[in-house]
Amino acid sequence: MTIVTCVAPVNMAVIKYWGKRNEDLILPLNDSISATFNVEYMRAKTTVMASPTFKENKIWLNGKEESFENPRLLHCMKELKQRAQKGNDVINWNIHVCSENNFPTAAGLASSAAGYACFVYAVAQLYAVEGDITGIARKGSGSACRSISGGWVQWHMGHLNDGSDSIATQFASVSHWTEMRILTLVVNDNRKKYSSTVGMRRSTATSSFLKHRADSVVTERVLNIIKAIKEKDFKTFAEITMRDSNQFHAICLDTFPPFMYLNSVSMTIIELIHAYNDFYGTPKVAYTFDAGPNACLFLLEADVPEVVALIQHIFPSDVAPVEYFKGIPVHHQNLSQELKAKIDIPKQNKGLIKYIFQTDVGEGAQVVKDENEHLLNESGIPKKLK
Amino acid sequence: MTIVTCVAPVNMAVIKYWGKRNEDLILPLNDSISATFNVEYMRAKTTVMASPTFKENKIWLNGKEESFENPRLLHCMKELKQRAQKGNDVINWNIHVCSENNFPTAAGLASSAAGYACFVYAVAQLYAVEGDITGIARKGSGSACRSISGGWVQWHMGHLNDGSDSIATQFASVSHWTEMRILTLVVNDNRKKYSSTVGMRRSTATSSFLKHRADSVVTERVLNIIKAIKEKDFKTFAEITMRDSNQFHAICLDTFPPFMYLNSVSMTIIELIHAYNDFYGTPKVAYTFDAGPNACLFLLEADVPEVVALIQHIFPSDVAPVEYFKGIPVHHQNLSQELKAKIDIPKQNKGLIKYIFQTDVGEGAQVVKDENEHLLNESGIPKKLK
Repeated sequence: MTIVTCVAPVNMAVIKYWGKRNEDLILPLNDSISATFNVEYMRAKTTVMASPTFKENKIWLNGKEESFENPRLLHCMKELKQRAQKGNDVINWNIHVCSENNFPTAAGLASSAAGYACFVYAVAQLYAVEGDITGIARKGSGSACRSISGGWVQWHMGHLNDGSDSIATQFASVSHWTEMRILTLVVNDNRKKYSSTVGMRRSTATSSFLKHRADSVVTERVLNIIKAIKEKDFKTFAEITMRDSNQFHAICLDTFPPFMYLNSVSMTIIELIHAYNDFYGTPKVAYTFDAGPNACLFLLEADVPEVVALIQHIFPSDVAPVEYFKGIPVHHQNLSQELKAKIDIPKQNKGLIKYIFQTDVGEGAQVVKDENEHLLNESGIPKKLK
Repeated sequence: MTIVTCVAPVNMAVIKYWGKRNEDLILPLNDSISATFNVEYMRAKTTVMASPTFKENKIWLNGKEESFENPRLLHCMKELKQRAQKGNDVINWNIHVCSENNFPTAAGLASSAAGYACFVYAVAQLYAVEGDITGIARKGSGSACRSISGGWVQWHMGHLNDGSDSIATQFASVSHWTEMRILTLVVNDNRKKYSSTVGMRRSTATSSFLKHRADSVVTERVLNIIKAIKEKDFKTFAEITMRDSNQFHAICLDTFPPFMYLNSVSMTIIELIHAYNDFYGTPKVAYTFDAGPNACLFLLEADVPEVVALIQHIFPSDVAPVEYFKGIPVHHQNLSQELKAKIDIPKQNKGLIKYIFQTDVGEGAQVVKDENEHLLNESGIPKKLK
């Protein structure tokens, strides 16, 4: 095998990863927990080709050639070669890598996680690497280790100095909680993106809350949310998810100088979800926010139509439905007058939410068997170039 | 003496009070530190009159009669009577109280602190109470205890169950750091005010960060900021002040459900101050935010003109200078091209900052001797009524 194409999913943390105890090995300060997004709607796709005729290693990301001399990339390559099956000539050949995402960078969803997971998974196929590869993906981009497996995943912080026990494992499969849906609300935002690598480093150096979180808060939350997911206890799952998102953003504010990923639209979404949950007297929706203003809402399939109708009521939009709704189609539902009357949040200006993307929990990284799907042609050159 | 009129200042915390360990006695979870604002520009003013002919206790706030049956008010009255000089007949008479603030509620500055300090101070004069009265003011409104003294004040959390050691003391006088100025930037905001009493209660119940702050962070900060103020070490003072404000707002976000007093204008002010401090390579300005979006900037007199010019450059306003500038007059200065070029923050929309109020550090509560200043006429009726 000298060519392989793979896809890998995006994942969304419900217990957040923020802060490294070792920057080189990318070892986190605490465990994190994530759901894997369905790879059908949102994924990285990577073709890796090895050939004795290639003069050098090359990589193209989203149609544009990038330097292979990226320390993280080289770190992954070195480990993959060490783990390759002995006697495999392929590891001595140069490789060409071509990778693309099918979701806009504007979505603010961690593309590097899916990207590195896909790259490591694909090269592991090529080199016939056996055993765990999440620890290798971790060295590309921390949360990439959570995009190898599907379903519900735990990234164990590990305790060994060499990081060999800092790996990700699945604790609940795709088929476990099939009613779960995730709505990503992509928020309009014109602020500069604040790098999460820089932010983590700064929080680790200056926020005493971050240390307290890692030492005294997360361990219990991880145990409780795993239990809640295993028991399909939505109430507990939702409360921990929301609290953990809030705590992560609290740490950003406790960092010096402070920074804030949430904007006023994010804050209004938070208020709206609490108002909606209060209306029912129990959590029906959980929000979580990563390093940006976009909301990820976890909820059960049956509640999607009403929640989407409520969002559209508070955040009106002129965008045509075909553009506004992405992923799993949303069934239309009218809001009850009672709900409208009880939600004490004013209608916002038009266009604050760009679009809504619905997905469910899906499988992990996988090989694409159809040869037409390769992103490189027979000479190892991208079929599409920018 | 059967009539007395007093004034009491506003105070601004640089180490924040957030969370009570006893709700009835208003005992805080941690020490706090504040600067007293000059009473000339912003103050509560209260006239208290006692007469054997008054049929009942009465109180007017800002020209409007309110109920005297307020538990906090009654709590203060009870303590003041217990502490009155023996044989003083006045304590058996009913009283009329008339109080007004000379600053708009819109300023979002804790009017209850100045109000209760003034009320307690005035009644203490009438009853010839001797010794500390900050512990009594505390029972009206926690931070009122910091508005009795001038200069720089420490509210000691205390450790006794009856709260008798939870009092405020001055540790640096008005004449100690005369170069210090405070600019309050009053921010336009149309959100509902989120009650600080409710917020504190909720943070105490749900935020593990609040407990960690009280147990492990504040004690050292208090020692260090007192040292910095005593040594006029602006750099250390500024850094602790900003960190403590950020930490308080981080706790609001770590509270469940979360709430946020800072809005996008507040966040832009924070960015602007950090950019300005970075330009000089040392803190020249410290921001602090209470339970609202308005910024309080601490800085030295010599830096006021440039900082105000910078604020006006980034936050343009159409308001006439006579309306826009309140308190100590600001001298006009042009911004250097170098500073303008280096501050990488876009000019904001007009009108985001309503006005700027400049003050310095001033004296505490005091008696007004001029009889024309009484707010009640000879019959004990307010001279001005709404």
